[in-house]
Amino acid sequence: MTSLPQRRLFDLPDGVIYLDGNSLGPLPVAAKARVAEAVSDHWGKMLIRGWNAAGWIDLPSRIGDRIARLIGAEPGSVMACDSTSVNLFKVLSAALSLSGRRVVLSDMGNFPTDLYVAQGLLGAMRSPDDLKIVAPDTVLETIDETVAVVMLTQVDYRTGRLHDMAAITAKAHDAGALVIWDLAHSAGALPVDLQGCRADFAVGCGYKYLNGGPGAPAFLYVRPDHADRIAPALGGWMGHEAPFAFDLDFRPAQGVDRMRVGTPPILSMVALDAALDLWDDLALSAIRAQSIALADLFIAEVERQCSGFGLELATPRDGALRGSQVSFHLPDLDGKDRGYATMQALIAENVIGDFRAPDLLRFGFAPLYNTEDEVREAARRLSVILSERRWDQPRFLTRAKVT
Amino acid sequence: MTSLPQRRLFDLPDGVIYLDGNSLGPLPVAAKARVAEAVSDHWGKMLIRGWNAAGWIDLPSRIGDRIARLIGAEPGSVMACDSTSVNLFKVLSAALSLSGRRVVLSDMGNFPTDLYVAQGLLGAMRSPDDLKIVAPDTVLETIDETVAVVMLTQVDYRTGRLHDMAAITAKAHDAGALVIWDLAHSAGALPVDLQGCRADFAVGCGYKYLNGGPGAPAFLYVRPDHADRIAPALGGWMGHEAPFAFDLDFRPAQGVDRMRVGTPPILSMVALDAALDLWDDLALSAIRAQSIALADLFIAEVERQCSGFGLELATPRDGALRGSQVSFHLPDLDGKDRGYATMQALIAENVIGDFRAPDLLRFGFAPLYNTEDEVREAARRLSVILSERRWDQPRFLTRAKVT
Repeated sequence: MTSLPQRRLFDLPDGVIYLDGNSLGPLPVAAKARVAEAVSDHWGKMLIRGWNAAGWIDLPSRIGDRIARLIGAEPGSVMACDSTSVNLFKVLSAALSLSGRRVVLSDMGNFPTDLYVAQGLLGAMRSPDDLKIVAPDTVLETIDETVAVVMLTQVDYRTGRLHDMAAITAKAHDAGALVIWDLAHSAGALPVDLQGCRADFAVGCGYKYLNGGPGAPAFLYVRPDHADRIAPALGGWMGHEAPFAFDLDFRPAQGVDRMRVGTPPILSMVALDAALDLWDDLALSAIRAQSIALADLFIAEVERQCSGFGLELATPRDGALRGSQVSFHLPDLDGKDRGYATMQALIAENVIGDFRAPDLLRFGFAPLYNTEDEVREAARRLSVILSERRWDQPRFLTRAKVT
Repeated sequence: MTSLPQRRLFDLPDGVIYLDGNSLGPLPVAAKARVAEAVSDHWGKMLIRGWNAAGWIDLPSRIGDRIARLIGAEPGSVMACDSTSVNLFKVLSAALSLSGRRVVLSDMGNFPTDLYVAQGLLGAMRSPDDLKIVAPDTVLETIDETVAVVMLTQVDYRTGRLHDMAAITAKAHDAGALVIWDLAHSAGALPVDLQGCRADFAVGCGYKYLNGGPGAPAFLYVRPDHADRIAPALGGWMGHEAPFAFDLDFRPAQGVDRMRVGTPPILSMVALDAALDLWDDLALSAIRAQSIALADLFIAEVERQCSGFGLELATPRDGALRGSQVSFHLPDLDGKDRGYATMQALIAENVIGDFRAPDLLRFGFAPLYNTEDEVREAARRLSVILSERRWDQPRFLTRAKVT
């Protein structure tokens, strides 16, 4: 395997080895023309008529249906809208409205914003004590009849550890609990089968493996048999049965449409829509196989080329137990922030990964554009930076605002 | 007065008289290049580094400060983020957290999404009965010591009627209530003095008079002395004191920054930022004077040219009592939807306003690009459509999805 034909559909800068598509996917070539068209031809020429003529009003559901195919969801069950955090708030409040219980169970491997959303929501509506955060490997055994909602991110943003969605969902259902899956690091990275698992709710991100652009709209999923029974705490006119009737009373739209709130950011939506063209003829099983192969190769190359510098694999070695990323711990050295600085030095050498506190070097693998040659070369440059101690310079040790 | 020099800064289609900037502002020329740069040079070439190198991370507060100047807000008190509905949810839950009372007072002239947000929030957190909706002209007399929050849109989206922000805010404060102003039809349309009124919270829209593009990010305002005391029910990582520390516990950032939630939609943000360049050297008092003159002229021309067709002014005749729009009732005729069809026929004649059920023709006036000649010509074309009964065709009578 060298490179999938999709690589030419991305506008990747020359010489850059981009291993950070798990944080922000690169620019699909098609997005440039589509966004320009949305600006000049739709906004510029159609003006307000764009809502009908350019189909802006249906973009959230049309994009939702395209994402549905990638996460094993029923057509009409996914909506592209808002941010992942806002969507999590909507589905968590909806899930709680369906349950007579109080406890929200999550784990320490969850992305913190998910926990913040739960803290804010429970603090305002119920009790902050209703949030129970356990270690990832104890989730299964902690699920019991007190739990209202199990709320987890499938792939740990730091280690890449993958939760067993089918097993956890089944156990939760056996205990009478509902499950919310955050697919931020799953959608576009590996096959997801929401329908097969009978997952209740899900949210996810448009700007990571889906390549929708910085801050692209997120998505949410509601299992069809729940959709007409939920009352979103955060409801707005776009979720009304008849938004343009301008009734004083909220009457929720049928199905997942009721989870829309305000006016969607069209320019960002259009970029995401263009990015989804890339997936039209792809099987996620093939992507998954290549993702595991690339990550296996990277682990082997780093362990071969960079031994003796204290790198320690933080990611499950078994490809079936991780998402599409590999992380290594790299402890501080001589009282210096070696992990952070090494990543900065690597970026200066055109290998872009990222750093997660306290000491993780994190690398994402996206077979749509990453190749085996890139993986080998990334490991080689890392070894040079470590062996020549190139990281030990003030320009690399100084922290940027976003790390 | 003919045309302000700003008109050439907009990319308006030839021949179109655009009187719908109160729904979606037209394309500022500068936005085309800025969005293209954000796509190709920032996202495309900087990739993840754009968060620091292109300043994406600070866009919400930088844009917020630019909007602050237009609404009389303190620097550092406004954040551009999310949709107006989501922002209203955030400020309403924050306001309620500051008050020991329960009642949220609003009026029937409010934009329905504001009422839906309050219904959802109160339904989930408190009691739906806590929402009290009164007639606009009885708001002042209804404010009493039971009211926690007065939540109003300053300019009525249908009639253009303008609330007296200073008087209502003062009365509310006297009664110990807090006030939230929705500035959707105010920001960029008329001078607003949040600071002078000591308003507590505000929200508003980026895509109407601010010309930020379809679904542009909205904004919110928190009075600085409240900002460090509020606990948002909807909190996310971007509102954390240290988002990249990835703590398990939410610690709110200082000031209005805590009202950020998820990752902002950068492409849509950049368009709004570019659109705000237009205001850099403008005084809103001059814009306001021209807006009133244009609307006065339109009322006079319509009443002169279109008499006898049943048009009835729905907007206050006194310019000081309205926002920057004029609406006329046009009742059904012969059992046909004449108001709707007349607006469609007008749009077909390149005069773009909009229709609001049940029978309102609505026209917005933006002195940045609208001229006296346009206003006269719009009234003339309306008179032709009415006198020649051009509206009475199936293509005009058939309702579109977005009306």
